[in-house]
Amino acid sequence: MLAAVLYGPFDLRLEEVKIPKVGKDEVLIRVKAVGVCKSDIHYYETGRCGSFVIKEPLILGHECSGEVVEVGENVNNVKVGDRVAIEPGFPCRTCNYCKEGRYNLCQKIRFYGTPPINGCFAEYVVADADFVYKLPDSISFEEGALLEPLSVGIHAVRRGRIKPGDKVAVLGAGPIGLVTLQVAKAFGASLLISTDKVDYLLEAAEELGADVTINVNKEDVVRRVLEVTGEGVDTVVEASGSPEALGQAMEIVKRGGTIVQVGIFPEPEFPVKMVYLVDKEIDLRGSFRYVNTYPLAMELVKEGKVKLKPLVTHVLPLTEIKRGFEIARKKLNKVIKVVIRP
Amino acid sequence: MLAAVLYGPFDLRLEEVKIPKVGKDEVLIRVKAVGVCKSDIHYYETGRCGSFVIKEPLILGHECSGEVVEVGENVNNVKVGDRVAIEPGFPCRTCNYCKEGRYNLCQKIRFYGTPPINGCFAEYVVADADFVYKLPDSISFEEGALLEPLSVGIHAVRRGRIKPGDKVAVLGAGPIGLVTLQVAKAFGASLLISTDKVDYLLEAAEELGADVTINVNKEDVVRRVLEVTGEGVDTVVEASGSPEALGQAMEIVKRGGTIVQVGIFPEPEFPVKMVYLVDKEIDLRGSFRYVNTYPLAMELVKEGKVKLKPLVTHVLPLTEIKRGFEIARKKLNKVIKVVIRP
Amino acid sequence: MLAAVLYGPFDLRLEEVKIPKVGKDEVLIRVKAVGVCKSDIHYYETGRCGSFVIKEPLILGHECSGEVVEVGENVNNVKVGDRVAIEPGFPCRTCNYCKEGRYNLCQKIRFYGTPPINGCFAEYVVADADFVYKLPDSISFEEGALLEPLSVGIHAVRRGRIKPGDKVAVLGAGPIGLVTLQVAKAFGASLLISTDKVDYLLEAAEELGADVTINVNKEDVVRRVLEVTGEGVDTVVEASGSPEALGQAMEIVKRGGTIVQVGIFPEPEFPVKMVYLVDKEIDLRGSFRYVNTYPLAMELVKEGKVKLKPLVTHVLPLTEIKRGFEIARKKLNKVIKVVIRP
Amino acid sequence: MLAAVLYGPFDLRLEEVKIPKVGKDEVLIRVKAVGVCKSDIHYYETGRCGSFVIKEPLILGHECSGEVVEVGENVNNVKVGDRVAIEPGFPCRTCNYCKEGRYNLCQKIRFYGTPPINGCFAEYVVADADFVYKLPDSISFEEGALLEPLSVGIHAVRRGRIKPGDKVAVLGAGPIGLVTLQVAKAFGASLLISTDKVDYLLEAAEELGADVTINVNKEDVVRRVLEVTGEGVDTVVEASGSPEALGQAMEIVKRGGTIVQVGIFPEPEFPVKMVYLVDKEIDLRGSFRYVNTYPLAMELVKEGKVKLKPLVTHVLPLTEIKRGFEIARKKLNKVIKVVIRP
Repeated sequence: MLAAVLYGPFDLRLEEVKIPKVGKDEVLIRVKAVGVCKSDIHYYETGRCGSFVIKEPLILGHECSGEVVEVGENVNNVKVGDRVAIEPGFPCRTCNYCKEGRYNLCQKIRFYGTPPINGCFAEYVVADADFVYKLPDSISFEEGALLEPLSVGIHAVRRGRIKPGDKVAVLGAGPIGLVTLQVAKAFGASLLISTDKVDYLLEAAEELGADVTINVNKEDVVRRVLEVTGEGVDTVVEASGSPEALGQAMEIVKRGGTIVQVGIFPEPEFPVKMVYLVDKEIDLRGSFRYVNTYPLAMELVKEGKVKLKPLVTHVLPLTEIKRGFEIARKKLNKVIKVVIRP
Repeated sequence: MLAAVLYGPFDLRLEEVKIPKVGKDEVLIRVKAVGVCKSDIHYYETGRCGSFVIKEPLILGHECSGEVVEVGENVNNVKVGDRVAIEPGFPCRTCNYCKEGRYNLCQKIRFYGTPPINGCFAEYVVADADFVYKLPDSISFEEGALLEPLSVGIHAVRRGRIKPGDKVAVLGAGPIGLVTLQVAKAFGASLLISTDKVDYLLEAAEELGADVTINVNKEDVVRRVLEVTGEGVDTVVEASGSPEALGQAMEIVKRGGTIVQVGIFPEPEFPVKMVYLVDKEIDLRGSFRYVNTYPLAMELVKEGKVKLKPLVTHVLPLTEIKRGFEIARKKLNKVIKVVIRP
Repeated sequence: MLAAVLYGPFDLRLEEVKIPKVGKDEVLIRVKAVGVCKSDIHYYETGRCGSFVIKEPLILGHECSGEVVEVGENVNNVKVGDRVAIEPGFPCRTCNYCKEGRYNLCQKIRFYGTPPINGCFAEYVVADADFVYKLPDSISFEEGALLEPLSVGIHAVRRGRIKPGDKVAVLGAGPIGLVTLQVAKAFGASLLISTDKVDYLLEAAEELGADVTINVNKEDVVRRVLEVTGEGVDTVVEASGSPEALGQAMEIVKRGGTIVQVGIFPEPEFPVKMVYLVDKEIDLRGSFRYVNTYPLAMELVKEGKVKLKPLVTHVLPLTEIKRGFEIARKKLNKVIKVVIRP
Repeated sequence: MLAAVLYGPFDLRLEEVKIPKVGKDEVLIRVKAVGVCKSDIHYYETGRCGSFVIKEPLILGHECSGEVVEVGENVNNVKVGDRVAIEPGFPCRTCNYCKEGRYNLCQKIRFYGTPPINGCFAEYVVADADFVYKLPDSISFEEGALLEPLSVGIHAVRRGRIKPGDKVAVLGAGPIGLVTLQVAKAFGASLLISTDKVDYLLEAAEELGADVTINVNKEDVVRRVLEVTGEGVDTVVEASGSPEALGQAMEIVKRGGTIVQVGIFPEPEFPVKMVYLVDKEIDLRGSFRYVNTYPLAMELVKEGKVKLKPLVTHVLPLTEIKRGFEIARKKLNKVIKVVIRP
C-alpha cells in the first residue's frame, strides 16, 4: 500500500509498504480521511514532538476515519463495509491508569504516529476493534477524522468541569480552540470568549458561537475580559500553547476558578505569574489527549451542537501530503484544518 | 488594654488601646495564646504581605485562643468562662463564595491582622460567635492557637484529595509543613516524604511521622524521591514557597498526580517547568487559608493524630513580643513556632 | 395589607394584616405573582405537609416575584422600584450546613409558607436582601415566580449529575417534571423520556423537549424504556412521588446509574424493589428544595433554554385564591400552574 | 486435581478434575487458602445466589491465595514460586464500564464461583496475570485470601466517601461488617458504631475498633445512636442485608448523609421508610463487589490498620469442606470465617 513515511526533518517520502496484519481483536480499515495535526507538523519540521523523538522512519497521522475491510475473529462491534472513526491510541488495559479509567495516561499506550507506532497517512491501517466506532450516515469521513481533535476539546472541557451558566475563555482559536469553544457551549457555558492573533480564526470563532472575540495583538485581553465579566471567568482553557496566554489566564480567571492547559508550550520552562495561584486559589490542570470521549463526540456532531465542517478548509489526496503539510505549517490560505484523503 | 501595634517596618509599639465592643452575635475573649506566623513577620519586616499593605497602625496576630469574658445577646454556642479557639476570619455570609461553601474566598472577609482589621496580639479580642470553638480540656491554649496553622494543613490536604494508600511529599518542614505531614498521615497516606534545608526541622518531621527526610542542600531531591517511589508521588504539598521546590514538585509528582501550592512565593513571577503540566496531566492547585476545618482540627488533636506541642518551641509574654518576632524571623534557637501569651 | 390566611383545612380567609417591618439587611416587596404549589395544596387540604403541621393561622405561598418598595440601610444589591424574584428560604448562615454550601439542609431556615413562617399570598412580603434577585426585563413576574419550581428542577438535575450525552427519564410531568426535563436538556442530556398518567401533561412535555413520552396507564413503562435505550437510562428523576414510579426507576436505570427522588411520597413507608440497588450499584439520592440555583435559573430562562410561560395556565387575583386552589387541587381545565397576582 | 464440585443444593462432591490450562497472559496457581463466603453458602443451600442460578456442576470459591506454579509467555508481574492473592473477577476490558474505571459493573466479567465460571475450592486455579498480586512476607495465605472480603469493605467505604472526622455506623458485624469497620477507621472515621444480633460478633467488633456496639435484639438502635451522636451519623454502611437494618439506617443517618448498602437482601422487595430520603436529602448507594482495591487492601494489612487474622476462626483441609460449609451456615463454634486449605 502507499504510505507517507517520515525519515527526518522535511524528509517525507511516499512509499509502498506492507499492509499490516489483523489480529483476532483487531480491524483493518481502508483510510478515507486523516487530519493534519500540529504534532504531525512538529515531527515534520524537527523530527520530534515534546519528549518523543523519531529514530526509525515513521508513518505519521492519527486523526482518522475509514471503511472496515477486514475484522479479526473475535470482533463483533463493527463489520466489513462499515464507515468508522478510529480512536487512535490503544492502551495496555492492565496498568492502574487503565483500570482506573484514565487510560490516556497509560505508559504502554500504542498511539498512531507516535514513535515507534505507525500512523494513518497510508491506505490501510489496523486498529483495536473496541476503539473503532461506527459512524452514523450523517457524519462524513472528514468529520469522522475530526472527532479526534474534538475529543481533545471534550477532555479539556471535562477537566475544566465547565457547567451550565459558566463564563469561559478559550485562548487560541486554532482547531483545538474552535472545538473547545463549541464543546463548552454544549456543556452549558453562558458566555464564551475567544482570543487569538489571527483575525480569520476569530471570525470562525464568532460563527461557531463565541460571544466575545479578542485579537491579542490589537487589544488588552485582561482589561477587556474583566470589563465584560466583572470578576473574571469561571474557567479558562488555554489552547494556544503561548506562555503569554497562560499569564493572561492567571489574571482573567476568577477567584476559585479553573485553568485548563491543553496547548503545548514551545519550551519546557518559562516565567509564570504564579502569585495568583494561591491568592485566588486557582486550579491549574493539564489536559492530555482524551479518555472515553468518542461516543459523546459523535453525539455532539449528530445533534448539531458541534460543527466540524467549517474547520475543514483544505482537502488533498495522499499524493499531495507535502503540499498539505506546507499549507498547514505556514498557515496559508486561511487554513484551519488540512485533511488528507488517501 | 495592652496591644502590640505595628506602625511600619520594625516599628512595633506596645500601647494601651480600647477594649473592642461586643455585638449581639459576637464574643469578647481574653487572649491566652497567639502564634507568630510568617505573615506577621512579613508585615513586621516590610509593612506588607502579598497584596496587602498596612496604611494605618495595625494590631497583628491571628493564631489565637483564649477565654470567653462576654457574650452578645444572641450567642448560645459558648458562655463566659469557656476556653476557646478562634477561627480568625469572619466572612460576609451573603456572597456566592459564602453560600457555596468556599468562604475562604469571600472578598469581604474580615481577617485578624490583615489590613484594616486588627488582630489579637492584645489582651482582648472580639469574634463572631460561630467562629469561636469551645476547647476540650485536653487541648491547651498553645495548642488551641495552633489550630489555625493546622487548619491551613487540613485545607491543603483536602485540596490535594490525599487518601489512604497515597504516597505524599511535603516540601518545606516549617510549621505548615509539619502540620501538613501529620494531616496527610491522618488522611491515610502510606508514605510521607519531607524536605527542607534545615536539619533540625527535618528531625522534627521525622519525629512527627515522615518516612523519608531529605535535606535539599545535601541531596538531589528528585533522584531520591524517584528512587524511593518508582513512578513518583501521588500528591506533593509545596509548603516552602520556594520556586525551586515547585520545580521539584513538577518532577516528582507521578502522571495524573496533584500538586498543592500552599507556600507563599517571595516574588509574583518566576520560571516554572511547565512542560510536565500537560505531559503528565498534573493538577496544580492553589490552597488559600482554609474553610470548615476547625471541628476536624480539634478532633485530630484530641485523638492524638496530630501533635502540636512539639511545634511550640518558644513561649513569651506580650511585653516581649519584639524579641519573639526577632527569634522567629532570624530562625534562632531551633525555633519552630513562637507563641505569645498576653 | 390583604393576605390569604389559612386557619385549618379548607379554611382560607382573606384578611387585613399588618405589613411586615424591614430590618437593616432586608427588603420589602410588593408581591406581583405567586405560584400555587402542591405543598400549598397539601396544607390547604389537611393542615399539614410532610412533617410540618399548621398550629397557628398561616399565610401560605413561596413561589414569588414582585417590586421592591423599601430597602434596609445595609442593602445595596437591589433598590426601590426593582423588579425582583425571591428565593423564599433564609438560612441561619452559621450552622455547618450553611458554611459547607448546603444551606437547603439548614435546620433553622425560615421558609415562606412553612410553619411558623408566613408566606407571600399577600400584598407585601419581607425578604433577606441577598435572597432577592433583580429580574432582567425579559423575565415577566409570572416567570419570576416560577424560578422557584425551576430551582427545584435545577437542584434535582445537579443531584443527578446529568451531563452531556446522558439518557434521562423524568417520571411525572407536573410543573416540577416539566422544568426538570428542560433543565436536563440544558445540561446536555441527549435523550429525554417523560412519563405521566395525564395526556395533556405529556403533550406539554413533548412540546418542551421530551423525545419520548409514555402514558403509564396505557403502556408498560419499563419495557418501552428498555426498548428505546437498550441498557436503560443514565439517570432517572422521580418527580411524581408515586411509589410505583420509584419501582419503575429501579428497573429502567442502567448499571451504575443514578435515581434522584424529588417527588414527595404520599406515605412514609412502602414496598420498594431494593434488589437492584446493590446488583446494579445504583445511587438513589434524595433532592430537597435547592441551593445556589437562582442565578442559573434566571440565566436559563434568559437564554431561552427553559420556557416557563407554557406552564402558566391560570392567572387569578388574590381575591380569587380559593378558586385557584380548587382548580389546582382538582386538576381542572388542563391546569399546569395557577399563578395568583395580588 | 481434586476439586469440590456443587451439583445442586447440598450436593457437594470431591472429585478429580482437569487442571486448567494457562493462556499467555495468565497464571496457574496452586491454591493455598480459600475463604468460605456467604454467597458460597447461598449456592450450597439453594443452588442460586441473587439472580445467578447453577445449571451445570460448578466449583465454588472466590476468596483465594496461593503459589504461582506456571506463568504465560507475556506475564512479568509475578513469577513461579511467588506467594500471591487473586482478585477473582476478570473483566472484558473493552466495554464502557471497564474503560471508565468501573470494571466491577462489567457484564462480561468472569468471576470465580459464579455460574458458569469455576472457582477455587480446588488444588489449582488459573487467573489473569494482572489480577494476581504478589504478597509481602508479612501477609499469610489466610490473610491473602481475606483480601477479597476486605476489598468489599474498601469499596463500600469509598462509596460512602468516609473521611477523617466522620461518625460512621456499620450495621452487621459479620466478616464484611468487621472489615468495613476497620477500613472506615483507616479512612479517618472518628466514631465507629457497630450493630448485630450476635454478642460474640459485637465483641470482635469492639476488639477491632468499634467505639460503640449495640445488640439490636437487646437495645433500641435508633435511640442509642441518636443519644451518642446527637444529629445522627455521617455515613451508615448496611452490611447485614436485613430490611430492618435499612430502616434503622434511614433514621440514624444525619441530614445530607450517606447510606451504603452492601449487604444482600433476602428478598427482592420489601417496605422501606422512604420519607427520609427526600426530607434529609440522603444518598442511598448500592455497593457491588469492588474495583481497584487490592493494592490498598495489601497496604492496609501491611501497615496493621486492618487485622484479618482475628476473623479466621476455622481452618480446614479441602477434604473437610462440607464440614466447613456446615459450620459457616449454622454459625457454629463462634465462627466468623472458615478458611479451606487445599
